[in-house]
Amino acid sequence: MPNHPYAPPKLKQGTLRITPLGGLGEVGRNMTVYEIDGKLLVVDCGVLFPEEHQPGVDLILPDISQIEDRLQDIVAVVLTHGHEDHIGGVPYLLKRREDIPLIGSKLTLAFVEAKLKEHRIRPKTHIVAEGDRHTFGPFDLEYIAVNHSIPDALAVAIRTDAGLVIGTGDFKMDQLPLDGRITDLRAFARLGEEGVDLFMTDSTNAEVPGFTALEKNIGPVLERVIEKSRGKVVVASFSSHVHRVQQVLDAAQKNGRRVVLLGRSMVRNMKIAADLGYLDVPEGVLVDLKKSGDIPDHRIVYMSTGSQGEPMAVLSRMVNKEHQVEVGDGDTVILASSLIPGNENSVYRIINGLMKLGANVVHKGNANVHVSGHASAGELMYCYNIVRPKNVMPIHGEYRHLIANAGVAIETGVPQNRTIIAENGTVVDLVDGVAREVGQLEIDFIYVDGKTVGKVTDDDLRDRRTLAEEGFISVITVVETSLGQIVSGPEIHAKGVAEADHVFDKIKPQIAEALERAMKDGVTDQHALQQVVRRTIGRWVGTKLRRKSMIVPVVVVV
Amino acid sequence: MPNHPYAPPKLKQGTLRITPLGGLGEVGRNMTVYEIDGKLLVVDCGVLFPEEHQPGVDLILPDISQIEDRLQDIVAVVLTHGHEDHIGGVPYLLKRREDIPLIGSKLTLAFVEAKLKEHRIRPKTHIVAEGDRHTFGPFDLEYIAVNHSIPDALAVAIRTDAGLVIGTGDFKMDQLPLDGRITDLRAFARLGEEGVDLFMTDSTNAEVPGFTALEKNIGPVLERVIEKSRGKVVVASFSSHVHRVQQVLDAAQKNGRRVVLLGRSMVRNMKIAADLGYLDVPEGVLVDLKKSGDIPDHRIVYMSTGSQGEPMAVLSRMVNKEHQVEVGDGDTVILASSLIPGNENSVYRIINGLMKLGANVVHKGNANVHVSGHASAGELMYCYNIVRPKNVMPIHGEYRHLIANAGVAIETGVPQNRTIIAENGTVVDLVDGVAREVGQLEIDFIYVDGKTVGKVTDDDLRDRRTLAEEGFISVITVVETSLGQIVSGPEIHAKGVAEADHVFDKIKPQIAEALERAMKDGVTDQHALQQVVRRTIGRWVGTKLRRKSMIVPVVVVV
Repeated sequence: MPNHPYAPPKLKQGTLRITPLGGLGEVGRNMTVYEIDGKLLVVDCGVLFPEEHQPGVDLILPDISQIEDRLQDIVAVVLTHGHEDHIGGVPYLLKRREDIPLIGSKLTLAFVEAKLKEHRIRPKTHIVAEGDRHTFGPFDLEYIAVNHSIPDALAVAIRTDAGLVIGTGDFKMDQLPLDGRITDLRAFARLGEEGVDLFMTDSTNAEVPGFTALEKNIGPVLERVIEKSRGKVVVASFSSHVHRVQQVLDAAQKNGRRVVLLGRSMVRNMKIAADLGYLDVPEGVLVDLKKSGDIPDHRIVYMSTGSQGEPMAVLSRMVNKEHQVEVGDGDTVILASSLIPGNENSVYRIINGLMKLGANVVHKGNANVHVSGHASAGELMYCYNIVRPKNVMPIHGEYRHLIANAGVAIETGVPQNRTIIAENGTVVDLVDGVAREVGQLEIDFIYVDGKTVGKVTDDDLRDRRTLAEEGFISVITVVETSLGQIVSGPEIHAKGVAEADHVFDKIKPQIAEALERAMKDGVTDQHALQQVVRRTIGRWVGTKLRRKSMIVPVVVVV
Repeated sequence: MPNHPYAPPKLKQGTLRITPLGGLGEVGRNMTVYEIDGKLLVVDCGVLFPEEHQPGVDLILPDISQIEDRLQDIVAVVLTHGHEDHIGGVPYLLKRREDIPLIGSKLTLAFVEAKLKEHRIRPKTHIVAEGDRHTFGPFDLEYIAVNHSIPDALAVAIRTDAGLVIGTGDFKMDQLPLDGRITDLRAFARLGEEGVDLFMTDSTNAEVPGFTALEKNIGPVLERVIEKSRGKVVVASFSSHVHRVQQVLDAAQKNGRRVVLLGRSMVRNMKIAADLGYLDVPEGVLVDLKKSGDIPDHRIVYMSTGSQGEPMAVLSRMVNKEHQVEVGDGDTVILASSLIPGNENSVYRIINGLMKLGANVVHKGNANVHVSGHASAGELMYCYNIVRPKNVMPIHGEYRHLIANAGVAIETGVPQNRTIIAENGTVVDLVDGVAREVGQLEIDFIYVDGKTVGKVTDDDLRDRRTLAEEGFISVITVVETSLGQIVSGPEIHAKGVAEADHVFDKIKPQIAEALERAMKDGVTDQHALQQVVRRTIGRWVGTKLRRKSMIVPVVVVV
């Protein structure tokens, strides 16, 4: 149910136009475009992971086709942090124009560069840090430290002739983070004093009352679980969660265990984090999988990927006994991770599977081994009260999250009519301290499927769902139209239909008869004859088999 | 990962054999078979709803094929309550032998009979009530009142020469239920004194610490939400949850609103419940949808189905504006229901959709509008301590639930080696006060798909998943083998592949060449020629398109 599209007016000099191309009304593919005086600034360019009704799709991109003819006007892309839903779309954008400058913190850009390397793209990068301030075209950018479930995240303050906007990116307000780098409320306060015209904040946890718990509370729980374990310990988490891995390293060391990193992305990201000083690897704790053979089970912790039940990741392979690390009786597996909605079946399949192997499974349902990376409603209140923005536009979240975030803003005193519930493609203009909706673009899902980008359409997905639920029936007949005769067939092939082959024997004479009659009536066109076949078998399949299988009629005219 | 199958020994006279055919290791299709002295007793016969990796499947039955040749030995089927996961498979069992006696409470059998009527089956029924005791062949059955999220649920005590077994069915221990009918712990205590050899209890909520909250706490919340609503109110819940509907009727009446029941199953079930005295409809509160046209929005409550986001149910149709009741600004929708794992995406889609229509959406995430129907760990402890069983076998639940339930039993003093973690098909023999595993049958999913039962195989589902994710490519060629020539084609049809048709032009000459070469080498067999096509295009699709699409090669030999 997207909004009804309508064209925005021509953008006036000195007005700032803000258009989200992804991430509003969904969790993922975050991307917002800012335009003023003919120049564009992009903030984030992430991916969305497909749902079950989008089979075969690998990734979904923001609708970058909207700026296809404006690529030369982009002055920069600001990347707020290194999570896939904020950076995953960058390769696809840079394939269209490789020299767009990328702005981000040291760790964020290191993650982006590793990703771009796989796509053989060498980007033009500008490393920035909190407190820095630069001008790109008409945009004066200042970066603010925020705390999130990945280090080195930044909010961005965008000053233009139209006013001051802050986009928080994903954030929370852990007051005692592992690296001491808290969300910089002093900067928010200073900007608030200056006057914030539009404040765009992370909605992900806006429905959750109160405050997100401290990351450092998890360490002691990990320590105790590892201490009590007699066998090997496997900890699964997100491969970019540097602080979670830090706590696992520390807990392992305290228990006299060594740590093996498992999973390609885990190994790659932690090398980057350690090289850049974000991960403090205790001397001698890490050991390579290849060299871990001699270490007894009770002296080892495996730090792995696959906490969401992804079928190809380490944890699933352990459950299916397809991984060289075997989990069995007396071993402990800790899922130190969230359960992303939609992944329940996969995750519970993993938990059940590990338990059947004899493992003790510790997860956020039975122990405090995870905290969220997003600000709860209580934290958002602090932000709104410190910034006191003129206008608010919730970002990053499903519609219910945006509504909840707007509700928090209104509770703190932001007028309801200055609180904008935008969606993907909603065009918002900021001028004279007032932000208002002025248009609605039609935003598409851009599907990445194998090597193709944007080739899979919603029609293709409908075909795929039909194939999955109803299968297909192809009918091949060779006819000689000049004689009005069937030379061969009809031959019927069915897949996924769940009927025995002989079931179709009953309909073959009817198809033959219908074709012969049509040819007798002078029909010789291949397409028309195929339609005859489609009608004949389609009706029969619908009434006799009660199915709506895809029908593929092929009439070869010789 | 099913257990390794092994055959149980021949059953000795006087030994009771217990074999679950569904419901262990999953939530749904509950069915357990008891055998002694050549006779079988079945307890429950439910359905399981398919997951996303089982596309096109409507229902999954317990593996009734295991007793296919023993149907005449079944003395009765006991149905513990009227939920689909306990009664939904009955029509498919009775289609194999229609005169199997069905035993159950008044409401349970009324629900079963309504279902069987749709299948044109008139069952042989025995209505029983708590406290009743009857003998069916070698089974002496006693029924015990239990409280659940549907009225009139029963546990069953089964006395045989081998000892006394209790199966609780689904239950919880609400101490102040709406109908005053509590789980009969006095009966459990009396049976405990007599000596319970095997106790089989509901594991669904065994992971949840503490106690399930009272159903009657929901009424005042519903009342307040309805009181505050200015527009129409829609309440969605399960169509068999008589007490939930009762609370909605009462809350509506107190607020001077009338109630319209929406959804075929809601209307049917509530008529049965009211006719039999389980639902107390306040005078003049119910009104037919057809006659509700004149009632203003603020005087009406719609009680509907679809709380799990089922695409064809009332609530989804409201979201898609396909239902005659329109939801909009100022209206309130209450999801007075659980969120069954796996349904998250559908349910959140509904919540987001309703919010976009302008409705205020109240659900268990933001208000106390639902309590579970299952006993939490605290309640299970009471049961184990009151019954003090010799042996325990957790039922009804995924593996993690069974393990948690066994853990509770062990905590209360049941020896670990008297606690049996069975799976579907695990054969357990009870003799001389000891229950032990003696075999493992291979249990299949029996898929109901359209009109077919058991015809869809796991291979078919693999085909369907391939079709969904990779699509199919069919290649049709007509050849005259005597001349070694291609008469027509190759013609290529692709669906769900996401490649433009012309992409395949590149491979057609190679296919033609491969076929001609094969014919030149003397290959004339249709199957062999089709394999030539499959290899040629399959390799190309794999390397050039990087896809694993299903290949359907058809070579017509004329």
